[in-house]
Amino acid sequence: MPELRKDYILDRWVVIATERAKRPHDFKREERVVESKTCPFCPGNEHMTPPATLLLKRDEEGNLVFDCDKGDERVKGWITRCFPNLYPAFVPPKGEYLEKRVPKIAHGHHEVLVETPNHDEHPPRASVEQLYYALLTLQKRAMLLAEKQYVEYISMFRNYGPRGGASLYHPHMQIIASPLVPKLVMEELTASDEYYQEHGECLYCRVVKQERKTERFIYENQHFLAIAPWASRFPFEFWILPKEHSLTFLDEGEEKLRALAEILRKTLGALSEALHDPSYNLAFHVHPLIYGFEGFHWHIEVYPRLTTLAGFELGGDIYINVTPPEVAAEELKKRVEG
Amino acid sequence: MPELRKDYILDRWVVIATERAKRPHDFKREERVVESKTCPFCPGNEHMTPPATLLLKRDEEGNLVFDCDKGDERVKGWITRCFPNLYPAFVPPKGEYLEKRVPKIAHGHHEVLVETPNHDEHPPRASVEQLYYALLTLQKRAMLLAEKQYVEYISMFRNYGPRGGASLYHPHMQIIASPLVPKLVMEELTASDEYYQEHGECLYCRVVKQERKTERFIYENQHFLAIAPWASRFPFEFWILPKEHSLTFLDEGEEKLRALAEILRKTLGALSEALHDPSYNLAFHVHPLIYGFEGFHWHIEVYPRLTTLAGFELGGDIYINVTPPEVAAEELKKRVEG
Repeated sequence: MPELRKDYILDRWVVIATERAKRPHDFKREERVVESKTCPFCPGNEHMTPPATLLLKRDEEGNLVFDCDKGDERVKGWITRCFPNLYPAFVPPKGEYLEKRVPKIAHGHHEVLVETPNHDEHPPRASVEQLYYALLTLQKRAMLLAEKQYVEYISMFRNYGPRGGASLYHPHMQIIASPLVPKLVMEELTASDEYYQEHGECLYCRVVKQERKTERFIYENQHFLAIAPWASRFPFEFWILPKEHSLTFLDEGEEKLRALAEILRKTLGALSEALHDPSYNLAFHVHPLIYGFEGFHWHIEVYPRLTTLAGFELGGDIYINVTPPEVAAEELKKRVEG
Repeated sequence: MPELRKDYILDRWVVIATERAKRPHDFKREERVVESKTCPFCPGNEHMTPPATLLLKRDEEGNLVFDCDKGDERVKGWITRCFPNLYPAFVPPKGEYLEKRVPKIAHGHHEVLVETPNHDEHPPRASVEQLYYALLTLQKRAMLLAEKQYVEYISMFRNYGPRGGASLYHPHMQIIASPLVPKLVMEELTASDEYYQEHGECLYCRVVKQERKTERFIYENQHFLAIAPWASRFPFEFWILPKEHSLTFLDEGEEKLRALAEILRKTLGALSEALHDPSYNLAFHVHPLIYGFEGFHWHIEVYPRLTTLAGFELGGDIYINVTPPEVAAEELKKRVEG
């Protein structure tokens, strides 16, 4: 029988189709078109993008250093590279900033983070070291943007594949620094903080503790846990949560970032293997820069794009998921371990 | 400059990309695959579907009557026809129903409404009379499902085209009778009722009154208004609202249904003409069957599927819309009138 499940924290419901649960082989392999244009994210083509706002490179002694492009010149030999999106949804204000409310103009920043010089080095095939560099750069750039007076939230996400809305193949993430907190994150913040005030306990910490013992468990390392959440909206959706209570990715140190690189590589690798390299979206949910919500716990949500959102979902924010998270976890788990 | 806009009623924000506003010719024409299989919704193939729970036909004197299939027989010569979805997300409970809370099993109904016997008679090409029959059947079936003790909300929606999630081409809608109110509708109910209690006025009535004088106005007839909403989430999104305060589609009489058929035909026709027959989702937002929210005002939302939802949208419930509603309204308006 189809099952109704409520999200851990939100008043958001999902119908889990348990009877004709779709396994990996039930999904049609996605069609991919081979790119023919010059890749603007590849080394040598830096002039096709705006100057880098931040890049990671090695100095003459071989030490890792952050740098940026100056004037019309482009730094070569970078390891990772951030620059403004050519078609930004958010733009920096000009002159002194006095707005106290949400501004009429979408003030902020919209940037691209190229994760690697290698056109094909996506997480399943990347070295943990290179993924760590990407995360280190993501964190550093987010911290710099967080200093701007008009920025209240940093959205960090990765669109992969055509169904995920990625227009370029070269491994990259996006960073949007906005003057407001996205609705879904605000709902999580409010609900988790309410729970915290009432129960004196972080609900996500409880999820971490309990779900690692269930059939929704996928993988864990020293610092992170991967699970298929109880009320998954998407087939093969999974979340990555820090095991220790932590408000934001921006506060994590080197050891945690390396562990995150490792679990991302393993889980995204398992997803790719299970479903023929499907499109997906990956979104960081972190604490905003201003308000205080002690009961929040940052995490990453990964949404494989195997089905089409339709009128029921978009018109009601209620979901039908054809793969129970228990099945998703089983399929991913065996491929993480394999 | 990109503009930040808040929804009329929800705390949901949209970035409207005003500078490089996309006009119809900026969107790539959707690829369509011609169907090769026998259509289970066409007359003569009724045995390919479950028995009709409701159908509209003419009796021997030529009067319109509702009927249904009995046993294994299928009524022929129908005008419209409802039956359970072969892969239902909600299923009726067996035996007496005692649940007081949201049930674990997704109890309810999930049905298909075939709008016409003609395989190609989609709204832009349908007669207003046939569209009226479809709406009349939709209303009748919704009213019958509303009588079930375990049903709290009736979702009614239309998925059109592959990007809209329609797996069959033959004109049809879907009806889902569920034991809970979808999240998005509940948010609209709560927010509009709060506004009503505070201001003694329905916010949607105010939208109706004000937006018909703006550049977001598309079309109106005696009973309905079509506008591109201020904070449209999707390019070329439009809403249809009754001009008079009304809680639900289920209460509307024949005259209103005929007017609704007319405005649907005109606006969906304009959309089809402007954008080469694009995929879309159409969702009714109506008052639930149990609670009372006086400040609500039922309406229809149409979401053309011209762009791909990605990490920012799915991860944050915040949208980037590349076509300002003022541009959408201008393009649709001239085609409604033409």
